[in-house]
Amino acid sequence: MELHDEILQIGKQARAASNALRSLSTATKDAALLGVAKGLRGAGARLKAANAKDLAAGKEKGLSSAMLDRLELTDKRIEEMAKGLEAVAALPDPVGDIEHQTIRPNGLRIAQVRQPLGVVGIIYESRPNVTSDAAALCLKSGNACILRGGSEAIHSNLAIAECFIEGARAAGVPDHAVQMIATTDRNAVGEMLKLDQYIDVIVPRGGKGLIARIYEESRIPVVAHLDGVCHTYVHQDADLAMAAEVSFNAKMQRPGTCNAMETLLVHSAVAGKFLPAFVAELTKAGCEVRGCARTQKFVTCKAATDDDWVTEYLEKILSIKVVDSLDEAIDHVNGYGSHHSDAIITESYSAAERFLDAVDSATVYVNASTRFTDGFEFGLGAEIGISTNKLHCRGPMALKELTSLKYVIRGSGQIRE
Amino acid sequence: MELHDEILQIGKQARAASNALRSLSTATKDAALLGVAKGLRGAGARLKAANAKDLAAGKEKGLSSAMLDRLELTDKRIEEMAKGLEAVAALPDPVGDIEHQTIRPNGLRIAQVRQPLGVVGIIYESRPNVTSDAAALCLKSGNACILRGGSEAIHSNLAIAECFIEGARAAGVPDHAVQMIATTDRNAVGEMLKLDQYIDVIVPRGGKGLIARIYEESRIPVVAHLDGVCHTYVHQDADLAMAAEVSFNAKMQRPGTCNAMETLLVHSAVAGKFLPAFVAELTKAGCEVRGCARTQKFVTCKAATDDDWVTEYLEKILSIKVVDSLDEAIDHVNGYGSHHSDAIITESYSAAERFLDAVDSATVYVNASTRFTDGFEFGLGAEIGISTNKLHCRGPMALKELTSLKYVIRGSGQIRE
Repeated sequence: MELHDEILQIGKQARAASNALRSLSTATKDAALLGVAKGLRGAGARLKAANAKDLAAGKEKGLSSAMLDRLELTDKRIEEMAKGLEAVAALPDPVGDIEHQTIRPNGLRIAQVRQPLGVVGIIYESRPNVTSDAAALCLKSGNACILRGGSEAIHSNLAIAECFIEGARAAGVPDHAVQMIATTDRNAVGEMLKLDQYIDVIVPRGGKGLIARIYEESRIPVVAHLDGVCHTYVHQDADLAMAAEVSFNAKMQRPGTCNAMETLLVHSAVAGKFLPAFVAELTKAGCEVRGCARTQKFVTCKAATDDDWVTEYLEKILSIKVVDSLDEAIDHVNGYGSHHSDAIITESYSAAERFLDAVDSATVYVNASTRFTDGFEFGLGAEIGISTNKLHCRGPMALKELTSLKYVIRGSGQIRE
Repeated sequence: MELHDEILQIGKQARAASNALRSLSTATKDAALLGVAKGLRGAGARLKAANAKDLAAGKEKGLSSAMLDRLELTDKRIEEMAKGLEAVAALPDPVGDIEHQTIRPNGLRIAQVRQPLGVVGIIYESRPNVTSDAAALCLKSGNACILRGGSEAIHSNLAIAECFIEGARAAGVPDHAVQMIATTDRNAVGEMLKLDQYIDVIVPRGGKGLIARIYEESRIPVVAHLDGVCHTYVHQDADLAMAAEVSFNAKMQRPGTCNAMETLLVHSAVAGKFLPAFVAELTKAGCEVRGCARTQKFVTCKAATDDDWVTEYLEKILSIKVVDSLDEAIDHVNGYGSHHSDAIITESYSAAERFLDAVDSATVYVNASTRFTDGFEFGLGAEIGISTNKLHCRGPMALKELTSLKYVIRGSGQIRE
């Protein structure tokens, strides 16, 4: 079959499955997830054999040892996938929740009820566990999903998807609720992104190149974040010990993540007191510092350029800028940031409230590390991605964000006059 | 200035205004709306003079009398616009509402707070009152807006926008909160739809051609409905007198609206009893009926083709199909409909619940006319459009739908371990 027809058929099958999944009981969905967990535990040999093919191909292609490590399926990681499925089964099912109901003067009962989005396309790279995690969240929220993983993990992904589909079918989940694109042809992504009739939302997971391509090409709404250029602003009324601890954590606890701090803003009134010790601590920990001209008066560091203010380093590099006011800090965050996660450190009530109101980011903090932006840390029990979109949802996406509200109206013969 | 640069500058100004509007007090916004209302009432002569130019040009272009009527600004319509502004001022401001707050075990207080979307682009045709209505809803919800009306109403729209901008400025609303594109160059829309950096959402209002073009071209998320192919299903357990009354209302009360019924589905067990009298009533009222082969056994009518099932007539035409089961009705609605507004007429509890669950439309009804899908009828106090999108919001859009939820997190020095 031609690639176009193959992907189109997958789309049509997903739409048909989503029409059945919409009314599937929570009990069936949970039984399926538990069954898949059991299946994954029993399929260790099969999964590792498939994974070995990917690892061998990866070595041949010269993948870095970090990438090979991310690709590897060990017994521990298989157990983690299974536990992840059990955790999703234990979460409340958002489908059918009534968020509001009003009764109108004419007696119409107007409710907004959570419903699955329909068909979710997941396009992701590297780690094979995403196959199982993403399929589980889609199934639990009543969505059909179409999975497209990276070519370097194709055998592992297909083996995991096969386990998932077997386990789901055994519990009575309709066919094609979960489908994986089997070809590694790069054009398959392009074909997928055209199927706005059959796919309701694309959730990409991966590097900036992948996300940028998908935002550029997709005819289907995309929920994702492109960059995580996150800030911490140390206000003149900050507890400077707290500022140092929180900022250090935001930068260094895991610098490769999207919610790590990339730029520190410091009020000029405390820059002289705060920066020398803080920068010494960062330097000692192996972090490169790039400062504005005023920062360079207090510490020895590279000069930051305009490019630095918009760069997501994803490594041990921090840009620092000295500002003269809260408003200058807010303007910098809104102007150069990526609207992901930004924090103020302050003891001033008014400054805190003003920052929270005025900063236009998915997540805004007072006196805490930006590293907390995460579905698990927020208590959502899961995470399929993080959104910096303004529409639909901002911040971590979990089960509720895979649904939307349908109006359900119960009448007794009302007509419009 | 080149068109591209002109539209780009409007976008940049709107973004700057939106950063100020985010924190504008409700009192200022309401004072502005009341001031604009007063200004419109005092500007009757100016508005009617501008409108006279559009009417003269419209007559010269040969616009239909219906279109000329929609275009005309009378004293009554100016008064209605002013009253509309006062009604929006009286609505609660959604900005700052906390929808959820939880305290995590580590003490982080995690809230979801309603915030303006940012910059809203409104692209619309014909009726000049949309200028004032749309600007009012955007201002009240803290959004900057860029208005682009139809060329046939350009003088009227500019005059209304000028009144709006004057009144808003006098109350202390930042400059460029409301901007209107002054050129009638058709390429301006294309330039606008590229500004994904500066415009957060496009809300189009108009005919299918306009909406289809915008969905096709826009790099900015669009919230709208393309079609309103709405259904009423008369189940075998329906109260047939209610079925006739509600279906007649859904088709005939205002056939040119998006929530009017286009296809009637009837269960075969009651088709013989229901259809002859109902179709006679429709025919008497001037409605053309197109039926499936089984419908034609009960009544004399044109034959419906497959095209009829996907057509939004927007006039006194109804297609009718006889079905053998609730599932066949549901499959028809989900397969051929436009996911706008669909109703079942039934006294069966189980059938009602199944229809509400399984039909994938923005608004699903039991025993009521689909004509109720409307922001005012739903008690939202306003309407800027109706969405058949799955993401963000489904159904009527008003103030709340012009906002989204930002995570606001208050800590006391928390760091991630």
